[in-house]
Amino acid sequence: MPVPRRSLRDQLLEAGLETLHAKGFNATSVQDITDAAGAPKGSFYNHFESKEALAIEALRQYVARGQARRAVLRDRSRPAIRRLRAYLEGLIEAATEARFSSGCLLGNFGAELSGQSPLIRKHVDGAFCAWRDALAEVIAEAQQAGDVPGKFAAGELAEFVIDAWEGAILRAKVAKSRKPLDLFLEVTFAKTLA
Amino acid sequence: MPVPRRSLRDQLLEAGLETLHAKGFNATSVQDITDAAGAPKGSFYNHFESKEALAIEALRQYVARGQARRAVLRDRSRPAIRRLRAYLEGLIEAATEARFSSGCLLGNFGAELSGQSPLIRKHVDGAFCAWRDALAEVIAEAQQAGDVPGKFAAGELAEFVIDAWEGAILRAKVAKSRKPLDLFLEVTFAKTLA
Repeated sequence: MPVPRRSLRDQLLEAGLETLHAKGFNATSVQDITDAAGAPKGSFYNHFESKEALAIEALRQYVARGQARRAVLRDRSRPAIRRLRAYLEGLIEAATEARFSSGCLLGNFGAELSGQSPLIRKHVDGAFCAWRDALAEVIAEAQQAGDVPGKFAAGELAEFVIDAWEGAILRAKVAKSRKPLDLFLEVTFAKTLA
Repeated sequence: MPVPRRSLRDQLLEAGLETLHAKGFNATSVQDITDAAGAPKGSFYNHFESKEALAIEALRQYVARGQARRAVLRDRSRPAIRRLRAYLEGLIEAATEARFSSGCLLGNFGAELSGQSPLIRKHVDGAFCAWRDALAEVIAEAQQAGDVPGKFAAGELAEFVIDAWEGAILRAKVAKSRKPLDLFLEVTFAKTLA
């Protein structure tokens, strides 16, 4: 049986995600996206109402991929603190493969669009909260195991870890260097969670 | 004697800084800036070669104001750790007055423009490094006073504190809430520097 071809909508979405992640929202035109997808410009509006509508779908896609990475957090064969470390190391490897050039889409959209698009701001906020909840779960488990002190609530520590990550990946992009990410990992386990 | 009127260049620069900080680089047109300055559109290019050139001047202005805030770090009448806390509390108050809506210009430009403008990326990188050096100085002093452990170098702790701040002010903007900034302060002094 032939491999089913991706629909034009999927191609536009994939090209849109890549282009928006690399260049940002306002520097990307609809034509940049149709060019990257190898699609005629006129086809865009058959599939998406606006660039904003595509950006929200791209964000959903990005979040779904981020959720898939979190599978390692649920691998109960290892202590929670080890799973969290493996997960964060995986994020660093992925950012290194992308040569730090794009940063985090949540951070990029949050910085660029929070004032411009209430809808995108709401989606970014929701994605941060869901991410916080996922990390809080494994941090709470590590607290129960005695590997992380209970002074701060797991949800607070999770929020702080995410904020420190967002700052580190931003600075990795600015400095074109992996160093902020390695420092993030070291301080997170030697200080924040210790 | 009459108060000297600000030059048109200064008015464009001030309006440019405000508009770029609030709306971002690519969402701001030259006309947005001349409109905000109450200046004729044609006047812009008499004073700045390009929007990028104005953005770099605006960044310098922003950095100079940030440096002025650091005076509190050099007030030797108080212990270094107290000065650092007062400085960071001042940043939170300023962000709260601005209702978290604009975030940090370094973070905004870093997220939006690192791939687009090598020159702006370089200026943002330099500003982060100078900021790191200023915080490292006071953290080193706090280490000498025994108020911060010496496990991490002062420069590393300063970088981590800045990254955590950048992530927190980004999330404050996304969540329209002061909470990430208060959490940043608490965890910084209870964990990162403890």
